[in-house]
Amino acid sequence: MFGDTLATRVAERESQIVLGLDPDPAALWPGRAGEPAQGSPAERAGEAVLGHCRALIDATADACVAVKLQLACFERLGTAGWSTLEAVAAHARGLGLLVIADGKRGDIPVSAAAYAQALLGGIETSFGAVPGLRADLLTVNPLMGTDAIEPFVAAARSAGAGVLVLVRTSNTGAADVEDLELRGGGAVWERVATIVGALGASAVGEAGLSDVGAVMGATEPRHLLRARELMGNATFLLPGVGAQGGRVEDLAPAFAPGRAGGLITASRSIANAHVQNGGEPAAAARAEAERLRERAWAL
Amino acid sequence: MFGDTLATRVAERESQIVLGLDPDPAALWPGRAGEPAQGSPAERAGEAVLGHCRALIDATADACVAVKLQLACFERLGTAGWSTLEAVAAHARGLGLLVIADGKRGDIPVSAAAYAQALLGGIETSFGAVPGLRADLLTVNPLMGTDAIEPFVAAARSAGAGVLVLVRTSNTGAADVEDLELRGGGAVWERVATIVGALGASAVGEAGLSDVGAVMGATEPRHLLRARELMGNATFLLPGVGAQGGRVEDLAPAFAPGRAGGLITASRSIANAHVQNGGEPAAAARAEAERLRERAWAL
Repeated sequence: MFGDTLATRVAERESQIVLGLDPDPAALWPGRAGEPAQGSPAERAGEAVLGHCRALIDATADACVAVKLQLACFERLGTAGWSTLEAVAAHARGLGLLVIADGKRGDIPVSAAAYAQALLGGIETSFGAVPGLRADLLTVNPLMGTDAIEPFVAAARSAGAGVLVLVRTSNTGAADVEDLELRGGGAVWERVATIVGALGASAVGEAGLSDVGAVMGATEPRHLLRARELMGNATFLLPGVGAQGGRVEDLAPAFAPGRAGGLITASRSIANAHVQNGGEPAAAARAEAERLRERAWAL
Repeated sequence: MFGDTLATRVAERESQIVLGLDPDPAALWPGRAGEPAQGSPAERAGEAVLGHCRALIDATADACVAVKLQLACFERLGTAGWSTLEAVAAHARGLGLLVIADGKRGDIPVSAAAYAQALLGGIETSFGAVPGLRADLLTVNPLMGTDAIEPFVAAARSAGAGVLVLVRTSNTGAADVEDLELRGGGAVWERVATIVGALGASAVGEAGLSDVGAVMGATEPRHLLRARELMGNATFLLPGVGAQGGRVEDLAPAFAPGRAGGLITASRSIANAHVQNGGEPAAAARAEAERLRERAWAL
């Protein structure tokens, strides 16, 4: 049961903090040694991104339970980017961190199953097994409905992993579709929350958590109470703290099922902590991650 | 103006048919020569997929205007898969076909912009320019709202490319969210259609087509008339013909703005035509693509 795996990991690490990795080749930490002098621009950029991500993970791992890899930032480096993605995931895993593949995929069932192979356990071919990214959690877009989510849930369940469905996101545009009011009452996002609750109902572990969680933007904490009513056993991934304006103090409803009921993800506020607070990037990032960890753990 | 580029290409090729490429390593065309004997399983599978896609493109290019690359099927081969994806896109482009990157991406603005870099023109880095996939069209998921779509539209517009927003998809699950009735009247998908119409309004070319199109499943042709009312200048990408049950004859409303108003995408019905109709895979695929082309052109 993934819910129990997650609860154990959160308890062991005493952290609900997720380090978001969305590396921009134009904004990597300065002063890293060993930047490659040869290879294609993509290969060199990929190596530099890998160095940056490794340094950021090494600096903050003690305060975190997981990393969240923003797939877009790796894909923009093409083939070299996918190779970098795999290396970053392996590095994080080696330090005991869970790996969240943040790709927000969603497609017809046959294609959803292919995405699940890419991000989870891979695919058997006549040439041998091709490994997948082996993520522990992956984000999924529910627009196309239940049959577009189910292949992810099935694949995650058989891999001992979990799914995080976009329910109410942290961006301004969430108002355009997710917040639309339905004729039968409630908003679109509440209907999605009901689907999430149903999909996870058959796989609730001893810790009270299922393997189907939800992305709930931390920028709209007033939604968290309602979301908890509709998804009593879902782990909430909570983006939007820090750079996007959300505050840890407002997130208490997420943790109703226990400490692993909420995972707080922060990207720029950790990676760029030195810009805000001064000091060395690694030390500033570590301090900011630890500050978030302590605040969340105290809730 | 991408709408004019598309209209010209459709007129030149006398085709509105899109070859869908969703290669499954377990179901490649038999009897292809030159399968690689060395390399990792992923590299060998990638080479085999590339050979399959090249053969399929070569067989059907004369009857098609574009290829649609299902990114999931390439991503499941990891780094080798992304390399294969780039090679397949280049091969199609070399034969005069437009390239549709079918990734159904959608994310907060900064990440949407990164996806657009990946699939369109790439990114400048201090190590040099990293090329993107250089797609002509890409599919986008609108769940997260206007600010999640706009970065794709902006990047496509500056690259001379276009965007296809998921409006009403061809899967059964489309009923779960897209078809929900809103308190103010209309369905969720109709609201998305209105957003699509507005985003494209400022970039309508002489041919009457904008650079913001819509994915409209061919399995529910009753929706096409309504969709055309809401998106008068959008090109409709029409999946679901063939294997999913849609019929070309039902698609006429899509072509109201002209022949480039609709692009009919078929994947398995072309690649597996030999299973249905007998004969060599290449000849059967060519015949099926040509049959679809003639039927659509006659509408």
